[in-house]
Amino acid sequence: MRLARHGPAGHERPIVAGSDGVWRDLSSLTHDIDGSFLSDGLGAARAALESASLPPITSPVGRFGPPLSSVGKIICIGLNYVDHARETGAAIPGEPVMFLKTPDTVIGPDDDVLVPRLSTKTDWEVELAVVMGAPARYLDSPDQAAGCIAGFTISNDVSEREFQIERGGQWDKGKNCETFNPLGPWITSYDEVIDPQNLAMRLWVNGTLRQNSNTSNMIFDVAYLVWYLSQFLVLRPGDVINTGTPHGAALGLADHPYLKAGDVMEVEIEGLGRQRQVLGAA
Amino acid sequence: MRLARHGPAGHERPIVAGSDGVWRDLSSLTHDIDGSFLSDGLGAARAALESASLPPITSPVGRFGPPLSSVGKIICIGLNYVDHARETGAAIPGEPVMFLKTPDTVIGPDDDVLVPRLSTKTDWEVELAVVMGAPARYLDSPDQAAGCIAGFTISNDVSEREFQIERGGQWDKGKNCETFNPLGPWITSYDEVIDPQNLAMRLWVNGTLRQNSNTSNMIFDVAYLVWYLSQFLVLRPGDVINTGTPHGAALGLADHPYLKAGDVMEVEIEGLGRQRQVLGAA
Repeated sequence: MRLARHGPAGHERPIVAGSDGVWRDLSSLTHDIDGSFLSDGLGAARAALESASLPPITSPVGRFGPPLSSVGKIICIGLNYVDHARETGAAIPGEPVMFLKTPDTVIGPDDDVLVPRLSTKTDWEVELAVVMGAPARYLDSPDQAAGCIAGFTISNDVSEREFQIERGGQWDKGKNCETFNPLGPWITSYDEVIDPQNLAMRLWVNGTLRQNSNTSNMIFDVAYLVWYLSQFLVLRPGDVINTGTPHGAALGLADHPYLKAGDVMEVEIEGLGRQRQVLGAA
Repeated sequence: MRLARHGPAGHERPIVAGSDGVWRDLSSLTHDIDGSFLSDGLGAARAALESASLPPITSPVGRFGPPLSSVGKIICIGLNYVDHARETGAAIPGEPVMFLKTPDTVIGPDDDVLVPRLSTKTDWEVELAVVMGAPARYLDSPDQAAGCIAGFTISNDVSEREFQIERGGQWDKGKNCETFNPLGPWITSYDEVIDPQNLAMRLWVNGTLRQNSNTSNMIFDVAYLVWYLSQFLVLRPGDVINTGTPHGAALGLADHPYLKAGDVMEVEIEGLGRQRQVLGAA
């Protein structure tokens, strides 16, 4: 099952697609795709797909919005791929590195990303995003994580490296600029992702392949991250975990080809769809 | 004008007090005190107070909840008092240090704070909290900040120092535990705070005065912070800025008297009221 939101920004409507791939109107079951729906509504959506009771979308789906509204929090994992840690010059972490993005950085998968006015080092990061469907608080083991995950989507963890690293000590300053978290195009439900630790992930800038890896290269896997984070904070339905990015960010490339207005990012994870963002100027 | 929310957790109702100090029911004007109300509703609330059209609360006010619902984001400033920077062993920052707390850490001013299960270094931090009432995006100068601020309240920026400093690189891991942001008791509107840079601030643990300073000791003042942050991200109505804490956290005291279940924190800022939290175990 895939869950998405389509329509103009701020007026998205919920849609769902089952095994036939046809997008269907979900608004008879929920007003939106949010933490409450992910917690309580997935069973009803699945049943409605099976009984073919949801009307197909007959006009073009048009713009995809973020596949989740009312995002609770976005927890980001840093340096979770060995080759990305090396390219940034950082040590391989002994335990997950955590920072945060604020929910108002989220935009649709194909919306414009804005280069901040003072930026000279705006960078890309393809990441597997975990969408929570149940609370996770002091889980006993990583085995309990699966029951708390609603599904997966793609995150582009856009980052301004000067703000992040050279402007005063904590990464959040370079991670929370306007439009810095394209999310989507849809949430693929947990049961449909055969192995979240074996998904090819790629990112192109202006057609040049810049990141080309696989979630199998994560240092700390999804189940471990959910368990680990639950020892420090409470994960809730509608929260998102950006699980880290592999090698190939501009920061780590020899010529540091940071983003500028007019550039185009394309972002893909196997089975989870594809994003495309044009860079604009803030 | 003071704005607050009272009643059981999750069922708070909005109240307001004017110059007579009497709490009055605000629910005829707004269903809640949130970013939308702070952006559009303060004028109507003021007019209703002047025309004495709001019914007084006749039963005891009872529990105060957080004075703001649907908090957008909580931006925290680190090391913004010289003596606190010194006690943590950090350099005096050349520009504001920024990190984040997630909105689901917010509790009412007198609610229990939970010591995390793995914690041995839970600590306190009295802070002046700025509540935004209008968007701030690339402000031209600090002079424009005042027009974006709805008012002020008190934040206790509860922190787990081992999680923050010794567990992998970014402070957020020790700042976002469950219940780690008592907020309130009320929002004092901007016009009623004569000088936000001259407010005495104090924090006691089990009756012992631990922090005793004044907002005049901030390195970067409120107007500068709002202007500065607006160069990196968009501040929106309903966002909160925790402006940093002065000397006297357990981290900086010789015997490191970190918090344990049963301890009591009392937190006060001149003119903004007082908080009281009992520590529990998560």
